[in-house]
Amino acid sequence: MPLSTKHLLGIAELSPADIELILNTARSFREIFSRPIKKVPTLRGRTVINLFFEPSTRTRSSFEIAAKRLSADTINFNVSSSSVVKGESLIDTGKNLQSMNPDIIVVRHHAAGAPQLLAKHCRNCAIVNAGDGMHEHPTQALLDALTIQDHKGRFEGLKVAIIGDIAHSRVARSDCLLLVKMGAQVVVCAPQTLIPLDFASYGVSVTNDIDVALDGADVVIMLRTQRERQREVFYPSVKEYFAFYGLNKRRLAMAKKDAIVMHPGPINRGIEIDPEIADCRQSVILEQVQNGVATRMAILYLLLGGRQTPAEEIIA
Amino acid sequence: MPLSTKHLLGIAELSPADIELILNTARSFREIFSRPIKKVPTLRGRTVINLFFEPSTRTRSSFEIAAKRLSADTINFNVSSSSVVKGESLIDTGKNLQSMNPDIIVVRHHAAGAPQLLAKHCRNCAIVNAGDGMHEHPTQALLDALTIQDHKGRFEGLKVAIIGDIAHSRVARSDCLLLVKMGAQVVVCAPQTLIPLDFASYGVSVTNDIDVALDGADVVIMLRTQRERQREVFYPSVKEYFAFYGLNKRRLAMAKKDAIVMHPGPINRGIEIDPEIADCRQSVILEQVQNGVATRMAILYLLLGGRQTPAEEIIA
Amino acid sequence: MPLSTKHLLGIAELSPADIELILNTARSFREIFSRPIKKVPTLRGRTVINLFFEPSTRTRSSFEIAAKRLSADTINFNVSSSSVVKGESLIDTGKNLQSMNPDIIVVRHHAAGAPQLLAKHCRNCAIVNAGDGMHEHPTQALLDALTIQDHKGRFEGLKVAIIGDIAHSRVARSDCLLLVKMGAQVVVCAPQTLIPLDFASYGVSVTNDIDVALDGADVVIMLRTQRERQREVFYPSVKEYFAFYGLNKRRLAMAKKDAIVMHPGPINRGIEIDPEIADCRQSVILEQVQNGVATRMAILYLLLGGRQTPAEEIIA
Repeated sequence: MPLSTKHLLGIAELSPADIELILNTARSFREIFSRPIKKVPTLRGRTVINLFFEPSTRTRSSFEIAAKRLSADTINFNVSSSSVVKGESLIDTGKNLQSMNPDIIVVRHHAAGAPQLLAKHCRNCAIVNAGDGMHEHPTQALLDALTIQDHKGRFEGLKVAIIGDIAHSRVARSDCLLLVKMGAQVVVCAPQTLIPLDFASYGVSVTNDIDVALDGADVVIMLRTQRERQREVFYPSVKEYFAFYGLNKRRLAMAKKDAIVMHPGPINRGIEIDPEIADCRQSVILEQVQNGVATRMAILYLLLGGRQTPAEEIIA
Repeated sequence: MPLSTKHLLGIAELSPADIELILNTARSFREIFSRPIKKVPTLRGRTVINLFFEPSTRTRSSFEIAAKRLSADTINFNVSSSSVVKGESLIDTGKNLQSMNPDIIVVRHHAAGAPQLLAKHCRNCAIVNAGDGMHEHPTQALLDALTIQDHKGRFEGLKVAIIGDIAHSRVARSDCLLLVKMGAQVVVCAPQTLIPLDFASYGVSVTNDIDVALDGADVVIMLRTQRERQREVFYPSVKEYFAFYGLNKRRLAMAKKDAIVMHPGPINRGIEIDPEIADCRQSVILEQVQNGVATRMAILYLLLGGRQTPAEEIIA
Repeated sequence: MPLSTKHLLGIAELSPADIELILNTARSFREIFSRPIKKVPTLRGRTVINLFFEPSTRTRSSFEIAAKRLSADTINFNVSSSSVVKGESLIDTGKNLQSMNPDIIVVRHHAAGAPQLLAKHCRNCAIVNAGDGMHEHPTQALLDALTIQDHKGRFEGLKVAIIGDIAHSRVARSDCLLLVKMGAQVVVCAPQTLIPLDFASYGVSVTNDIDVALDGADVVIMLRTQRERQREVFYPSVKEYFAFYGLNKRRLAMAKKDAIVMHPGPINRGIEIDPEIADCRQSVILEQVQNGVATRMAILYLLLGGRQTPAEEIIA
């Protein structure tokens, strides 16, 4: 059964079956990471362009490693040194790149909707959204889902608390869309200034009280305080933020005993998370990073070659 | 029959037979772009260094994809973060890179003559000029030639109009050299401030009147208005430039009915070209981009391995 | 016999047997540089991350070419565009990268001890120090040793003069440690302001008089005057520096007739070295660059695969 979409633009476009297919495929690919030769020849001769309009070595590297482990060729196209500086439109940049016959363009852009726009003008290659403005970051939500499924074995009935800068977080949006779609009960928590008005319509509950959010949670997702993104002041001080919304030992004790702690990284120790919690047994933050490579392999593979051979056969 | 040159420094050094060989080889390689595995093993184990002293993601990516589709290893060496900043001479940088035993160094430099200087101090590797100052940009001229030959089947007797900032354009210079060499009739057109004094000696005709240039043209090459390159003011305003030298529907109607419109990119919509014209049926701008990859594959291949096996056999 | 260390953090940790093993392995790999296919499949499917907190296209390229000639996949992770800018700690960056399952992380950092810190928090991959603050640059010392051994056939009893900015040079420190360990007699020479107090404890002799340093030397290593690293003024002027500490023809004549002249590059012509000397027959500066690639191949190979098969068998 193939994916129901030609591109990966957002969680909104995926069916639960698509999500399960991606997670299962990622799980298969992850097995090769413990081998000496961490590589399969599946996408040999395919070209993946990483088109990044925002700096992101972390996500870009994750995609680059994923592509290389599938034997694809990768090209990094960073906006700062590119023609876009010279005034070229996004559509023209996209059409130009497509004329070089890539198989996939992975795009990160500061404007919500940029990957959708590219996909609309795209005939011969697949577009993968690696984060668009404050809209979606679907591969992050998928790697989060893989991590949750690893530990909890299901989504149905789980209580997931997402805590932090909801307003500026494409991760929060994609996580909510995915988790609600898969049957989890999601509560988002932030100071009122950092909660968008429309979030309740996503089927999640909203609170400003971290104790309410954490109470009985199976999964705690802490968001990064994106200080570099804020022009205005949304809370009085970092110290106050930590006091009211930081995750510490005492607060985590309110969640279930086997609750897992997640974070999309990079973490701000002592701002949104106590260093002790970041490194504790319940923290699965580094597993998320590994799952990121596996999830991205699954996506590249399913968008290109996955209609023919299931991943389990490839890695066998 | 091999190329008559060891390096690709400029169109000036190429014979018509060299040019035909490159175009035919490029056409062969282009066939693999429609295959799922867009790659041949020809240059496996060869190293191509992209040495860029000017930012250019577009041309660099085109060379990088070309090298990878031939299975060569590529290294990007960008000047901004390199030792050149620390005061190393171009010759020392070149000798150092050569000591790492690359097979080809692709060089873009803001100074005319830089690739020639490198080639002079180069024993064991080939130099490819990816643009030097306001001198030459031979791979652009070759990909332009491939595009023209695709559509017109010949150069002899064609009327080619090159319109725009001739003075600062290495593309214009290389195009003129190639087209005159292959028997085309070339007319260059720009405001008088943007035409170099020596251009008439290239065997081209010169005019300030775009209507004269376009009249009966088979091929129209619009140049980019390189605003970032201009310190002085060469024309009163962008609006006036478009009014007098921009390509629009009415003007294009003066060219032959089957005239093709070309542009080296990135295009400035509404400055040198009407958006409607950039996207019209006669526009072959995106074909140029695809031909860029094929042409660069041909050049890398002919400079390295092409003496043994013709490209048609390789892709078979 | 394998290396005695899991990581390559500094010369201080290597035994003379380790050093000999690396040099012999490098010499084997160097043979493939004269082949058309400069590549062995030894590290296929392995991932090497170049984690550079200081700009260095030269050393990074050398490692990148070395990894590619062993068929490893390489990922460049430059700090300027990375999450480290966002306030992530070095240890967190390291742990995150490790979660992507690389086999080797090559790290350059402005702080002495950074690679050691990474290695301490590293379970599944090897760390290679590509230069840490003013501490060590072990791969440079090893390529220097390979170059010296090529020309002199031994270290025992050689007189090696190291001249220049000793205080700010991790190259000088690593060279001294290696050469003393291998039995050479080392003299370091600089203005008094550029000699650290503890250097005599390294088993080297110290002088401010270049004539004393050069007298009867078998090997002359000139250091780069690192003007970009100096905040304070350590000598009155560049002209005066060259007059007192620059290597010119007259001074080189004081060394042995077959003395070799070395420099870690990039050279400052006319500041620490006369252009005539940089290009003379005794200069082996470009051989050092080639040996850099071979040495780095040896290190990557020995840290990963070298326990099974000796390099001579691989290249056969």
